[in-house]
Amino acid sequence: MTTAISTSWRNWTRDVAVMDLRSLSTPALVLDVARLRRNVARMRERARALGVRLRPHVKTHKCVEIARLQTEDPDRAVTVSTLAEAAAFAAHGFRDITYAVPIEPGKFGPALDLVAAGLGLRVITDDEGVAGALDEAANARGLTIDVFVKVDCGYHRCGVDPAGRAALDVPRRIARARGLRLAGLLTHAGHAYHAATRDERLAIAREERDVMVRLAARLRAAGVEVPVVSIGSTPTLTVIDALDGVDEIRPGNYALFDAFQATLGTCAWDDCALTVLAAVVSRECGRRQVVLDAGAIALSKDQGALWLDPECGYGRVLDLEGRDLGLRVTSVSQEHGLVSAREDEAASIDRLPVGARVRILANHACLTAAQHDSFHVLEGDRIVDRWAIHRGWSLEA
Amino acid sequence: MTTAISTSWRNWTRDVAVMDLRSLSTPALVLDVARLRRNVARMRERARALGVRLRPHVKTHKCVEIARLQTEDPDRAVTVSTLAEAAAFAAHGFRDITYAVPIEPGKFGPALDLVAAGLGLRVITDDEGVAGALDEAANARGLTIDVFVKVDCGYHRCGVDPAGRAALDVPRRIARARGLRLAGLLTHAGHAYHAATRDERLAIAREERDVMVRLAARLRAAGVEVPVVSIGSTPTLTVIDALDGVDEIRPGNYALFDAFQATLGTCAWDDCALTVLAAVVSRECGRRQVVLDAGAIALSKDQGALWLDPECGYGRVLDLEGRDLGLRVTSVSQEHGLVSAREDEAASIDRLPVGARVRILANHACLTAAQHDSFHVLEGDRIVDRWAIHRGWSLEA
Repeated sequence: MTTAISTSWRNWTRDVAVMDLRSLSTPALVLDVARLRRNVARMRERARALGVRLRPHVKTHKCVEIARLQTEDPDRAVTVSTLAEAAAFAAHGFRDITYAVPIEPGKFGPALDLVAAGLGLRVITDDEGVAGALDEAANARGLTIDVFVKVDCGYHRCGVDPAGRAALDVPRRIARARGLRLAGLLTHAGHAYHAATRDERLAIAREERDVMVRLAARLRAAGVEVPVVSIGSTPTLTVIDALDGVDEIRPGNYALFDAFQATLGTCAWDDCALTVLAAVVSRECGRRQVVLDAGAIALSKDQGALWLDPECGYGRVLDLEGRDLGLRVTSVSQEHGLVSAREDEAASIDRLPVGARVRILANHACLTAAQHDSFHVLEGDRIVDRWAIHRGWSLEA
Repeated sequence: MTTAISTSWRNWTRDVAVMDLRSLSTPALVLDVARLRRNVARMRERARALGVRLRPHVKTHKCVEIARLQTEDPDRAVTVSTLAEAAAFAAHGFRDITYAVPIEPGKFGPALDLVAAGLGLRVITDDEGVAGALDEAANARGLTIDVFVKVDCGYHRCGVDPAGRAALDVPRRIARARGLRLAGLLTHAGHAYHAATRDERLAIAREERDVMVRLAARLRAAGVEVPVVSIGSTPTLTVIDALDGVDEIRPGNYALFDAFQATLGTCAWDDCALTVLAAVVSRECGRRQVVLDAGAIALSKDQGALWLDPECGYGRVLDLEGRDLGLRVTSVSQEHGLVSAREDEAASIDRLPVGARVRILANHACLTAAQHDSFHVLEGDRIVDRWAIHRGWSLEA
């Protein structure tokens, strides 16, 4: 696969040939494209071996070029977390999109606009009232929209209780609606992020699968057609051993991985494809402290897996070649990141005068990427491209 | 003062006349313009009474329209936290800008580009080596640039130790450089954000002032001209009683305020001008839990003043009129905000079916605003305008 130079950054790409990590302005997102490709290939192989369709969640990067690497089918099936992402990806040729946050009445209009424009949009709900209201809204426009029933497999954030009445009633309500098509059942085992061990993750992954397979069987026995059983989170899908009865998976983070996932054991440290390039701006306040120009906005304030690494701070400090310097970003304010070293780490700090550049491997790639407007694509030691990040929620402009 | 409808949102402004909190798509930033104007007027009055120039820090909002309300001088003196902000505000007629994060060599080029283009740009450093290198870079382009010496008044993030050698050496190095002009001394008492009581804040505020006044006297006694003594943080400036010897103040947060500041006692709860409009998307997982479409990105993951309010979560839940419902956003993931109520709060939760709209008063206005691309300007119960937020760091595109 070749890395094309985007035409959308005309002013910038004239200089692309000479760009490297020393010439980029800081802070900046750096994407190691070799690692990205390896991560993408590995999950694709895993989906193939498990016999399921891969519908990657693009909320992690909101980036068309990355999603193209992740998808091979002609419709480029993806998952999104906002209707703004749906609209942005639809505008770039993605034709089959699941919006995997429960829809509410304020979003019926824009969602139906996308359907009317020909997008294969699937939405989700766990609420019978929402299903009824969406049916009415679709009927009023002479449209039909695909709806998944969101199921709670133990995360307890959203979703019908799989053992409860709503787990039958909501799918039935959708199945009999003129303006709706039951797309199937959908869940997300977000609680796998909080597992302490691989065995715990595996148990959650099996439960995620089993809950869904059982509910699908119960519905089918009741005469309700369930076209698709959809599950997924990066921590469960990197550990699960079999997915019989499941049709598709929706991992997101696996494309980039991050310090949180590596600490969890979901990936190796050298699978992490995303770093924030930063420069030292001050080192006056104590011999063992440097200040970077990457703070709460550039890194995000997401905390790491504190129960496994209580001192993870806001990211690991790497050199430009990606080698761990053994230091952490210990605190952040808006545009400042502090690296305070222990006494035994002072030698590493001494290598970082004002102007020195480092790469920060942050805790949570999804939140870090969402703070920036583009990825700077690193191939070997050159920046070969810049890929836009489609942020925000606005559908009005 | 009138609120002009911007011309930059053409597609949108056709509908502005009918926009209110029920028709806006969610999540969305909502700016109460009456509160903004009151906050701005109060700090202006305070600066006048204290006999200092007000140079607001616009990192809080990154918004030209708000900064215009904050500034009255023809050059519209402001403070920024990135060179991208400097460039954006310069493009909108702001002619006197202090970039208040220490500069490092990677930013000399873009900073000098702004100076060459005629901007009155002041930069800061605490490092003699940086001063020397910036002098060389300025000389090479035949330019002169104004430089503040950053002083540590107790926050211990950046800045020369006011009692140490560098507090004399760095100003002298700047004063004798051909390519530099010593702008003065600059500090920020960021540790005032962590004060537990008003007395503690007042003590920090006095120390912030006294450290600077003493150092300026010491430098002047040594024959170094100190044109400007610049201090400031919202928590210290809302409490300080006198500022003799100080020339300018640089508060930022005061324009919007937030839950953190109200908890600290820096403002009243009804001074908070920024909220995030959100919709309920699910309430299936338990009788006392609702899920909003505003999560870690829309609100930010900044924590509140936990030492004063350990249960502050990620924001207070208000109704559309701004009345506190007594509920908090208790946890967030990327696009989901969970509101888990205690048993005695269940009645409030019952008022929030799927589709209900609320306004979230988040912990930290600066980080919340930086996640969005615009403020929706609320006057009474109408959205009367939309103001752009100039995010990001990129100077290349």
